[in-house]
Amino acid sequence: MKLYDLELSGNCYKVRLFLSILGIPWEKIPVNSKARENKRPEFLALNPRGQIPVLDDDGFVVWDSSSILVYLARKHGGEPWYPAAARDAAEVARWVAISQQAEITATGLSRARAISLFGTAGYLAGFQERGRHFLKFLDGYMQSRTWLALERPTIGDIACYPYIAMAPQGGVSLDEFTALNAWFARIRSLAGYVELPQPTPENLAVAFGPTGPGLSKK
Amino acid sequence: MKLYDLELSGNCYKVRLFLSILGIPWEKIPVNSKARENKRPEFLALNPRGQIPVLDDDGFVVWDSSSILVYLARKHGGEPWYPAAARDAAEVARWVAISQQAEITATGLSRARAISLFGTAGYLAGFQERGRHFLKFLDGYMQSRTWLALERPTIGDIACYPYIAMAPQGGVSLDEFTALNAWFARIRSLAGYVELPQPTPENLAVAFGPTGPGLSKK
Repeated sequence: MKLYDLELSGNCYKVRLFLSILGIPWEKIPVNSKARENKRPEFLALNPRGQIPVLDDDGFVVWDSSSILVYLARKHGGEPWYPAAARDAAEVARWVAISQQAEITATGLSRARAISLFGTAGYLAGFQERGRHFLKFLDGYMQSRTWLALERPTIGDIACYPYIAMAPQGGVSLDEFTALNAWFARIRSLAGYVELPQPTPENLAVAFGPTGPGLSKK
Repeated sequence: MKLYDLELSGNCYKVRLFLSILGIPWEKIPVNSKARENKRPEFLALNPRGQIPVLDDDGFVVWDSSSILVYLARKHGGEPWYPAAARDAAEVARWVAISQQAEITATGLSRARAISLFGTAGYLAGFQERGRHFLKFLDGYMQSRTWLALERPTIGDIACYPYIAMAPQGGVSLDEFTALNAWFARIRSLAGYVELPQPTPENLAVAFGPTGPGLSKK
């Protein structure tokens, strides 16, 4: 199993974390996104969107982090991590979906982090505020829960955890969110847990932050 | 089966379309988002995020459109619409995930539509351009394909179709995208297909567009 990987990417970290928890050996293929290696023809042949991560499982190529989590769960984790029965599947799918939504991604936490880490343009205070608004909701939701979707960890937790737990890298404090911190502690106690990526001169040197419209201050 | 519904919402339309294709009878419960009915305590008891659609299947409540599609597929559509085996599941899950990503949602097509239809603030030209960039990719991707994920329609198609096909409501023409138009025609020929929502004085009067940071022109 080969993973085309960018160390600082939260989407890549999701996959590394789940591979480690599942105990699956894998080979790291580092991609330098600052050098635009992920936009070269040989990479676009793997993933036509030119995004990282990409998983190559003995020739079967999977791209998009949510798709990779579903693939690994169905192939190696089976029922516990992503059950097939309708009700449980819906509960898990909800949190995989939310992990892709604006509050965590394009106009929220991960964008605030990108501005802070990579210096990309954007309305930092607005994205931080939108992220905080979501964190307040989620902290309330988690007051009476142990895991996001079911009574055990699922790919919903794996999908949402990284960009939420890395919120401080975007200037959003997590100190007040007691239920979220309790949830983080549960995730961090899972066998196979690996630490969140921290910025270093080395990993920053190969990382290119996202850009695009909608990133500006009013 | 009860659906809390907003006619103009593409996320609600996804669910109406899939219910109709599956031939499942359902009862419509209209929600007036302009009157903030979806932020009242009785609605928040159904969906703590206060978003529409919400499905109530004989007391089992499902919120988030992706979660609802997964629920209906696993309960009523079974293998054809969302298979459980790893490879096929990954292919389908990718397109459900992409339907939630920024190019279609927060800084792309649906946001351009929201600005155009509801008059919400935002950098219209930027969101249109980001949407077009994605459509160019997808049109190329679909040149050699019949459906997004597998050799048959899946919830990946149902999830992505609405906001892509409604792009002209946000001022983004689809005329040049021949492969996408062929895909639209296939979807529109499915038994049970229902028309995309079109703005009318009546449905606009009950619809509240999304707001938030990151919606401004540079």
